[in-house]
Amino acid sequence: MHAPDSPTPFLPQVRQRPAPQALLDALQARFSEQFSAALAVREQHGRDESAFTTVQPPAAVVFAESTRDVQDAVRLCAQYRTPVIPFGAGSSLEGQVLAVQGGVSIALSRMNRILSVNPEDLTVTVQPGVTRKQLNDALKSAGMFFPIDPGADASIGGMTATRASGTNAVRYGTMRENVLLLEVVTASGDAIRAGTRAKKSSAGYDLARLFVGSEGTLGIFTEITLRIHPLPEAVSAAICYFPAIADAVQTVIQTIQLGVPIARVELIHAGTVGMINRHAKLHLRQGHMLLMEFHGSPASVKEQAETVQTIASEHHGEAFEWADTPEERTRLWSARHNVYFAGVQSRPGCRVINTDVCVPISRLADALLESVAEADASGIAYYLVGHVGDGNFHFGYLIDPDSAQERATAEALNHKLVARALTLDGTCTGEHGVGLHKMGFLRDEAGAGAIATMCAIKRALDPDNILNPGKVLVAK
Amino acid sequence: MHAPDSPTPFLPQVRQRPAPQALLDALQARFSEQFSAALAVREQHGRDESAFTTVQPPAAVVFAESTRDVQDAVRLCAQYRTPVIPFGAGSSLEGQVLAVQGGVSIALSRMNRILSVNPEDLTVTVQPGVTRKQLNDALKSAGMFFPIDPGADASIGGMTATRASGTNAVRYGTMRENVLLLEVVTASGDAIRAGTRAKKSSAGYDLARLFVGSEGTLGIFTEITLRIHPLPEAVSAAICYFPAIADAVQTVIQTIQLGVPIARVELIHAGTVGMINRHAKLHLRQGHMLLMEFHGSPASVKEQAETVQTIASEHHGEAFEWADTPEERTRLWSARHNVYFAGVQSRPGCRVINTDVCVPISRLADALLESVAEADASGIAYYLVGHVGDGNFHFGYLIDPDSAQERATAEALNHKLVARALTLDGTCTGEHGVGLHKMGFLRDEAGAGAIATMCAIKRALDPDNILNPGKVLVAK
Repeated sequence: MHAPDSPTPFLPQVRQRPAPQALLDALQARFSEQFSAALAVREQHGRDESAFTTVQPPAAVVFAESTRDVQDAVRLCAQYRTPVIPFGAGSSLEGQVLAVQGGVSIALSRMNRILSVNPEDLTVTVQPGVTRKQLNDALKSAGMFFPIDPGADASIGGMTATRASGTNAVRYGTMRENVLLLEVVTASGDAIRAGTRAKKSSAGYDLARLFVGSEGTLGIFTEITLRIHPLPEAVSAAICYFPAIADAVQTVIQTIQLGVPIARVELIHAGTVGMINRHAKLHLRQGHMLLMEFHGSPASVKEQAETVQTIASEHHGEAFEWADTPEERTRLWSARHNVYFAGVQSRPGCRVINTDVCVPISRLADALLESVAEADASGIAYYLVGHVGDGNFHFGYLIDPDSAQERATAEALNHKLVARALTLDGTCTGEHGVGLHKMGFLRDEAGAGAIATMCAIKRALDPDNILNPGKVLVAK
Repeated sequence: MHAPDSPTPFLPQVRQRPAPQALLDALQARFSEQFSAALAVREQHGRDESAFTTVQPPAAVVFAESTRDVQDAVRLCAQYRTPVIPFGAGSSLEGQVLAVQGGVSIALSRMNRILSVNPEDLTVTVQPGVTRKQLNDALKSAGMFFPIDPGADASIGGMTATRASGTNAVRYGTMRENVLLLEVVTASGDAIRAGTRAKKSSAGYDLARLFVGSEGTLGIFTEITLRIHPLPEAVSAAICYFPAIADAVQTVIQTIQLGVPIARVELIHAGTVGMINRHAKLHLRQGHMLLMEFHGSPASVKEQAETVQTIASEHHGEAFEWADTPEERTRLWSARHNVYFAGVQSRPGCRVINTDVCVPISRLADALLESVAEADASGIAYYLVGHVGDGNFHFGYLIDPDSAQERATAEALNHKLVARALTLDGTCTGEHGVGLHKMGFLRDEAGAGAIATMCAIKRALDPDNILNPGKVLVAK
């Protein structure tokens, strides 16, 4: 474990690789109005939702409209060994889209067509710029939905790149389980296919899974085939309050051990409920809360809820409060998804340093309780929510971006939290990815042997290190 | 698509890399009674359940008892650039464990300890030589089970290496979804960790998924952490007969589209039911059959079965016949698992050429019906079963191993079948892997770009090509 005051979490590489004017001219000539070097456009593509505020923007932005556009842009950049940074919705939390070494952003927002919906096979094929809400709007009429739901209205390409998940992962899995097939533009500008639309395959190395979560460092996704799911016949949401976090966690452990197929189960820390109330104009009680959702047939939903209510009662949980109408449910889940904004609103002008550890669920109470005690002792404001069925939780430390001391305090808290999670068999990031912020943590977690293996793969697939360089790992 | 008469499906590489006597002496010195060069031992580790009968056995066998043993054996072989072939239960179907280039087998059967069971986290950690039945016996007392069930009592290491699945995959996924964490000995003899015991992670490249399905060509597994599942409260199995295969397939498609969480749904072709009857001494009717299983609470199991019965009735399915006692269910599923032996018994002395295509389920009826017509026209005896909920089915062509003509006919049928599956967006192998037999098919399926990417990874991780060389792909 590197020391809490190590510079690693900030900007691990400052080597600059400026885009030569000849490259910019060539891109301008090839892409004309799909190319921009205007400062406002560059700045817009030079930031995300991370707390990094001081990185220079990319030298230019190419707005790709086709696989061929992406190939041509990559080939031109490859010719000049200039970095290319794929840019989706800009909602990443770890600086994944920042041009830390300079280079050219490839914006994929215009590649936003849904290419085919196959309800019989439970698959859909989309371009990378499609957002999750856009996708779900399109699937509704087929009686289908796509469950992966990070808080933001992220792009499917970005969600694939960060191996995103969200509140439904406890039942439906993450992008790891729900990406079937990718078209990927490699460092040489070739377009390759990884995976298959068949539900399973033992045909060769699992390239699709290797690309999922590679954060733009191994290739740029230009087509993505996803597994979709039938809209449940019945849905019911409930809130349950607990006197202590450990009781809520124990309730979830037993629920899962009993095989109850709960669709969503989110923990919201008592203090955070207040922030959510103010932001979403709700009147929830300020206690430690489980927000749950059950999917299935009407009888199955009823039975699941009764089982969980019984377990909760044995752990001092109060009577369930129900949200049965779609409107009530949407209001609750939107409030939960907007916790980031609720946190920001609670301290105007702040930036959020977001944590993302995930531990085996039996270790969750330990991981949570000690970290809450540390955060309380530090005096830093924070919100705290958790995908508790997966053992994944997020502190959002609300810091004054101009206060080096607050930033250092928050980073120190995160260091302790990650160190604890690793001791408990956990991971430094459940769903946000490594980006710039967690490169040191990844080293601690994976160990030298696995890092060497990852670096060997990176060097083999991107020998000139042009694909989103300076993120995830330092490929010497 | 290469021509049906291409030599690829047989033995794609004949380059021999004999183990130097100095290596054998060094292995003998290091491993003493854990080392054998006796012909009977070598022959036992030089074959599997594939139809390849003419490959020479390995030069020697090392019986590993620890990670350190595997590391030392690999390091010695690496020093002499001699192939190492991991050997589990020997139940692979595509020649994965054959010493086609010579070299040393590392037998993992003695590494058969269950290292820890964590029911709260739904995980178990095992050594690679543990078999699936051994694992399930050990999990029973904790109220858990491991669902992946290839027909054979395969080793967990081998199942990980081939990305195995089986009859439960429609609900519980394959080894891809159920392997969480691996300890892997690499080509240099280092032991690295890939993955995490946490339920999800976005920490770097998904090495665990890259190793799953790599068929011994990227590393040797020495520790495997799996996801396990609670034993369902209620289980019920049913048989339903259909006048036509297409009706059975349509029933399954609608079942899955409705979101019924069916646990198992197997298609057995009418002619195959007769073989199963004779082998397992059953008295099933000889019709096209769906063999189904439902898991859940008693109420949920009842509801699922009623829903599927309704759908089946709309597609000319007859009334369900129930198998409610554990004994009846075990008898039926054992009979299904032993279809390979039932087929072999139906034609004494035959070898089986096993097919394994998997297609999106909407294409399943097309893929099946045309292939049945071709097989019938060829006059070759066969059995036919399918994991129909996944779109995966197996012909077992029962050939006289001494008849070049029968072998050629069977291979030609398989070529047509695979070509058809690829046209229908499918894969050449749903669960058996590539091994020796499907290297040409893999090229056709993945395309030159993906194959080049796989080869680049293989070369990066195993530059001297010592790990199970000559399988999956030719890494130039």
